Amino acid sequence: MFGTKDHLRAEGGHLLIDGVDVVDIAEDFGTPLYVTSEARLRANGRAYREAFPKADIYFAVKANGNLALLRILAEEGLGADVFSAGELSLVRMAGIPREKVLFNGNSKRRVELEMALEAGVRISADSLDELLTIDEVAREIGEEAQVAFRVNPDVSAKTHPKIATGLKTSKFGIPWQEVVEVYRTAMGLEGVTPVGLHCHIGSQILETSPFVEAAARMMELVGRIVEVGGTIDMIDFGGGLGIPYTPGTKAPTPSELASGITPIFEEGCQRLGISPRMILEPGRSIVADSTLFLTRVNVVKRAHVNFVGVDAGFNLLARPMLYDAYHHVVVANRADGEAEERYTVVGPICESGDVLAKDRELPKVERGDLIAMLDAGAYGFSMASVYNGQPRCPEVLVNGGRTELIRRGEDQSVLLLGQIVPARLLK
Amino acid sequence: MFGTKDHLRAEGGHLLIDGVDVVDIAEDFGTPLYVTSEARLRANGRAYREAFPKADIYFAVKANGNLALLRILAEEGLGADVFSAGELSLVRMAGIPREKVLFNGNSKRRVELEMALEAGVRISADSLDELLTIDEVAREIGEEAQVAFRVNPDVSAKTHPKIATGLKTSKFGIPWQEVVEVYRTAMGLEGVTPVGLHCHIGSQILETSPFVEAAARMMELVGRIVEVGGTIDMIDFGGGLGIPYTPGTKAPTPSELASGITPIFEEGCQRLGISPRMILEPGRSIVADSTLFLTRVNVVKRAHVNFVGVDAGFNLLARPMLYDAYHHVVVANRADGEAEERYTVVGPICESGDVLAKDRELPKVERGDLIAMLDAGAYGFSMASVYNGQPRCPEVLVNGGRTELIRRGEDQSVLLLGQIVPARLLK
Repeated sequence: MFGTKDHLRAEGGHLLIDGVDVVDIAEDFGTPLYVTSEARLRANGRAYREAFPKADIYFAVKANGNLALLRILAEEGLGADVFSAGELSLVRMAGIPREKVLFNGNSKRRVELEMALEAGVRISADSLDELLTIDEVAREIGEEAQVAFRVNPDVSAKTHPKIATGLKTSKFGIPWQEVVEVYRTAMGLEGVTPVGLHCHIGSQILETSPFVEAAARMMELVGRIVEVGGTIDMIDFGGGLGIPYTPGTKAPTPSELASGITPIFEEGCQRLGISPRMILEPGRSIVADSTLFLTRVNVVKRAHVNFVGVDAGFNLLARPMLYDAYHHVVVANRADGEAEERYTVVGPICESGDVLAKDRELPKVERGDLIAMLDAGAYGFSMASVYNGQPRCPEVLVNGGRTELIRRGEDQSVLLLGQIVPARLLK
Repeated sequence: MFGTKDHLRAEGGHLLIDGVDVVDIAEDFGTPLYVTSEARLRANGRAYREAFPKADIYFAVKANGNLALLRILAEEGLGADVFSAGELSLVRMAGIPREKVLFNGNSKRRVELEMALEAGVRISADSLDELLTIDEVAREIGEEAQVAFRVNPDVSAKTHPKIATGLKTSKFGIPWQEVVEVYRTAMGLEGVTPVGLHCHIGSQILETSPFVEAAARMMELVGRIVEVGGTIDMIDFGGGLGIPYTPGTKAPTPSELASGITPIFEEGCQRLGISPRMILEPGRSIVADSTLFLTRVNVVKRAHVNFVGVDAGFNLLARPMLYDAYHHVVVANRADGEAEERYTVVGPICESGDVLAKDRELPKVERGDLIAMLDAGAYGFSMASVYNGQPRCPEVLVNGGRTELIRRGEDQSVLLLGQIVPARLLK
């Protein structure tokens, strides 16, 4: 019923996660709520480690910045791909060693570069202009900047245009034709030590072929850099492996990805006589399916279609609105019920786009029912906002039959944080 | 140069807001930053009050939930349209009287209904199912529920599909064919007093004709309700008037809107012998053009196109990414410069969709330049998130040549708020 998600099952009409009744969890912690299976998260991390025994796996923190989850991935030996000073501080607090952190981003502030250098992590330079800023900052504060270069390989990732990041039209990276020249420039800069190349072609990619294509292009560039005397200590092939959100679809496994790119990497390194570290940056494929998003039915309206109004909207789960993304819906308190009617599940936000799931065949839904949206661990809470005055919800971890609160839910007071009304307006 | 925005001008190469140099403001408060002209905000509020002297103007708080701005609008005599318990608490704290608040929403929680009843504000019921819940809750807590009914008039608003809210396919309101029947049901409920009708056809609407069409349909329904013995104390025509984001475009003024709908309202009331209150719910057209969004250039990359990488992305200004929305860009430290090159302004967020402005003719842009995005007061900060570990920025009010901080910027500590790492993971 839940495909490869063996942490989920239906029993006695209820949905269970790692053996714990989801209906009970919702009663204990309230809704809306994110619920993560620790076992599944660990298993997903291990699958990458086993598929790529010689590579470093950097978790893409943008997918999920929960400290407990980061701590679990640190225990599993993962590093981190960070995109801001904020994400850098999170992963270091979670105990991910600085040697396993790459500071990415297409538009970093000067203070972020300073912070990255002071924290002693490598930086991925996105442009020549940024390289020059990094050199300046490094010389100013007297730290050596170990810099990799984000390559725009101009490879089509066959995904949603908003998350295809490796096309030449995207804002990311140095056009691949210019990479060798930028590398040579870096070799002449006093504050910078160039250490390798980095690419990332997109997100939610369901075939291995674009990765293979990008890897081949990367190894070609590596060859040309070695030719001009450059040193390559690391080659980061990025992340982007998709997951099967829709039942019946398939996504490549980490080991299928490894079969595609490891030979290209190893053959290339052998040919060039170099032994750099291979790095990957998965996010979604590690955390997405570990997590359910729970939301309660406030209202059922029979109008043009049957609307199920729930207590969470795109403020808490933005993917359906942003990318027309599919999250599978289970009525958690009727998890083994037969599909009876078609419903559209909508949130409480003041926009017509606030639709969590369109036209789903579900058992009969009533006020008070509990809706579980599957595969919500990636780009779920991390994109949440308090739009429409809706505070952000708690997060819970399920482990060995027990539940632990790992993020407290906010209340209305969060809307007041930082607000200052000038005295003259208090008259 | 700035159309009807007489609070903006260029002087000595710099952009000024209400006479204050925007370059100085950015230096004093840092970037990114929202900056609001109090004079413009007041003028926009007054324009509605003057165009509709007999109506109540309820500001749509979802557009901007800053307490200082709400306080200013309260001083100007405006009420509020709220969409959640959080928004209700904000407007009451800002001193907007409860008689001028309508609690809207298509999927309210039970606790929100309780709060609305306890706070003594009217509620707009979105469906029959919700009406029954309101009645239940009202009887339980012994409060009378004054209920208006959100009508879905099935009127096309000619705007972005995500914000067209009055089509029959949208999640909002009771299909207009069923409204009289629901009203009659309400008349028989012990806990509920039906007080009128409410509609809202969409957002960023640039013609008056859809409002006129909706108003006519509303008055037709009012007539049928009066016929069956229903009382109508209020008719809320909603909001949705657009603004001219793109230079050279036009939007109807409040008085043009009044010319369209006031006669329909007055003629209808006279014919029926009733004297309900007319209500409007503008948001964007009151707050959008009062506010600039300032962001600093981190990097200029010449690739397939010229990318200007700034220090804010769709986490702080989501409209371009969500709705392909246009915000006019001014290089604030070169505000009278001639256009020299085409640039695409992008943020630091890890998605290709993080583009703030596409293909704009601007003076030559360099690292360190200050970019002002105009008309950012509506659905700007209110939709902000900390995605990618980017804390939310401050807000500043400009008044009579002075600047006042009205919201402190967040720092990285906000990412840790509420997080709990179980002790066993601290080993």
